[in-house]
Amino acid sequence: GHPVYRNMPTTIFEKMSARARETGAINLGQGFPDAQGPEEILRAATDALLTRSNQYPPMAGLAELREAVAAHYARHQGLDLSPQEVIVTSGATEAIAASLLALVRPGDEVLVLAPLYDAYLPLIERAGGVARVLRLTPPEWRIGRQALAAAVTPKTRFLLMNNPVNPTGIALREEELALLAEFCVENDLIAICDEVWEHIAYDGIAHRPLIGFPGMRNRTVKIGSAGKIFSVTGWKVGWMCAAPPLATLLARAHQFITFTTPPHLQWAVAEGLAKPERWFDAMRAAYQASRDRLVAGLRGAGYVVNSSAATWFVTVDLPASGIDMDDVAFCERIIDEAGVAAIPISAFYPAEPVTHLVRLCFSKADEILDEAVARLAAFR
Amino acid sequence: GHPVYRNMPTTIFEKMSARARETGAINLGQGFPDAQGPEEILRAATDALLTRSNQYPPMAGLAELREAVAAHYARHQGLDLSPQEVIVTSGATEAIAASLLALVRPGDEVLVLAPLYDAYLPLIERAGGVARVLRLTPPEWRIGRQALAAAVTPKTRFLLMNNPVNPTGIALREEELALLAEFCVENDLIAICDEVWEHIAYDGIAHRPLIGFPGMRNRTVKIGSAGKIFSVTGWKVGWMCAAPPLATLLARAHQFITFTTPPHLQWAVAEGLAKPERWFDAMRAAYQASRDRLVAGLRGAGYVVNSSAATWFVTVDLPASGIDMDDVAFCERIIDEAGVAAIPISAFYPAEPVTHLVRLCFSKADEILDEAVARLAAFR
Ligand SMILES: CSCCC(=O)C(=O)O
Ligand SMILES: CSCCC(=O)C(=O)O
Repeated sequence: GHPVYRNMPTTIFEKMSARARETGAINLGQGFPDAQGPEEILRAATDALLTRSNQYPPMAGLAELREAVAAHYARHQGLDLSPQEVIVTSGATEAIAASLLALVRPGDEVLVLAPLYDAYLPLIERAGGVARVLRLTPPEWRIGRQALAAAVTPKTRFLLMNNPVNPTGIALREEELALLAEFCVENDLIAICDEVWEHIAYDGIAHRPLIGFPGMRNRTVKIGSAGKIFSVTGWKVGWMCAAPPLATLLARAHQFITFTTPPHLQWAVAEGLAKPERWFDAMRAAYQASRDRLVAGLRGAGYVVNSSAATWFVTVDLPASGIDMDDVAFCERIIDEAGVAAIPISAFYPAEPVTHLVRLCFSKADEILDEAVARLAAFR
Repeated sequence: GHPVYRNMPTTIFEKMSARARETGAINLGQGFPDAQGPEEILRAATDALLTRSNQYPPMAGLAELREAVAAHYARHQGLDLSPQEVIVTSGATEAIAASLLALVRPGDEVLVLAPLYDAYLPLIERAGGVARVLRLTPPEWRIGRQALAAAVTPKTRFLLMNNPVNPTGIALREEELALLAEFCVENDLIAICDEVWEHIAYDGIAHRPLIGFPGMRNRTVKIGSAGKIFSVTGWKVGWMCAAPPLATLLARAHQFITFTTPPHLQWAVAEGLAKPERWFDAMRAAYQASRDRLVAGLRGAGYVVNSSAATWFVTVDLPASGIDMDDVAFCERIIDEAGVAAIPISAFYPAEPVTHLVRLCFSKADEILDEAVARLAAFR
């Protein structure tokens, strides 16, 4: 036997960001905005740091933030969560880790949908679970009833999923969510829903949380991320919401992983979550404009682009763009020759990868997007 | 089978702090200072938050902090670590979790010394390991060669230890550290050294890191905590240092647990670690004065107190103080009747607990310590 992590690579996001830092390439790889963050949220954090407390907050999070998360989901998603059902974590990655380490028993099967975030499989394995991967494919990435039924076994106990979906930019359709909910109920599965992109949806699309579907209230862990909602990916403030029997187990795991999360950041996020609806609308509108700018620029340069309904990402279709390279080769070429970092979609598949799509992150200043487009236009 | 965490209690520190919050008791339980933190370190954090970056820093930590940790240990402990051997974590608890999840294979035995921090055993179990507990006893808490030899088996691969020691306030003696190092080399063990109290040592005692002992350089994970060094326990900035083959595995685990740690806090800690020797001397002198104040006050009130060489804790000896209660009963009585929260030492033993000692935290303002003493004097 060897340690689980022995043969694991460094995550693609870190690898590409490190190369961008070294080469000075424009980094449209790892998903993060290039702005500092919203002034009033930053000020709330610095005020709290200077005047409130820098000591251990309660292990499950500040009461103010747990209440703010519950109230926010009531207002924005019609959910009825109590503050006791919210556990604050040091980012959504910790929430996913804590959920799996809390709930998975050796040999339990965890159903996942590919393309998937590269942390999922190592974490499932480290928790002693066995991943069963349902492979989705473009252009529709549709989740089918038969495929789900074929993937489940008597050992399957969890569905770990992401909605809206990184890297495809899809927001799952109402009927797919209903199907997933039915499927979880029928097979007595717990759903671990990574919904970190819930607020980053465009064209008026409203997020539909899986926990709100029939039968899901007591069998869902809903995971959220302040880093995504407030454009401060480095803050590492997240949360997991679940009914009390699950929440108790989640808190147990959390207390021995990070124990707590910096209180000044928790206070600032609590303030942010109470912002009026128009604040979130303005944030989305700004990203939507960036999406449209990158898409228009790339299309003008002759690339075929799949725009997105959500997330900070669009994908370029290489063969449709007349480019005769796979995604990894293209990403290698453009970082060195065009000075633009991107992420190959194949990195989101553990096997049988889709290899003709490349992900680009558009949560950047206009002049950065324009320069990236100019470089990619010149590269063609 | 049931999930590992099903039968785990909430950590005693959280439980006692929650009761102190509810009852308004003076909280000398969980270890944290009641001050805001050092002004110049706080300012460094708010400046960075407002003007540098709130986005993902490099996964293993900002270069500035990794360099600052290596330079700090060179200056203060004569160590020769490279920045690449330092991985920044979201607190020392994450560092311990990451170390165990990175290194332990199913069935590996991990030797621990009781009294021990209550996160150790659940984390060892969750990583698939088996804890072997070497029980130490007062008044000397001495680690003996025979006892070590008796505890090791062919499956033992790790020693997980804490020095200086919470809750006893002991700084391990030179000859004990030499013995532990020899023992690790002889039995080919990796030492995971939780040295979060390294800077909080009194009466001129210099910390001796285990990684500096013969044969230990390539078989030790040295864990540190900015929360302890800079009196900001809520910041959750820690690190783990190890030779490259180990560091690579540690980083793999870290990337899927929290991925990164807030950059503004990392910059502030990097600045703090570069402070001159006299800065750390002044910090220690202030805590030493608090220790002496609490000890003198309690002794004046008729309690028999074991002072400490390190940490923020002293222990009261109940029978020697003429108190006919065990530690748990005494802590229950004083939180309700005297309005003072403390921690029973038995919470640091998984079995056969020492039950006649109670831990009190002295990293508090003088008037708080005086009031606690007055309350405990009245309680007698
Ligand atoms: C934790 S790094 C990954 C960030 C992200 O969400 C992405 O780039 O997909
Ligand atoms: C993470 S809570 C424990 C804090 C501490 O070091 C202690 O009180 O012993």
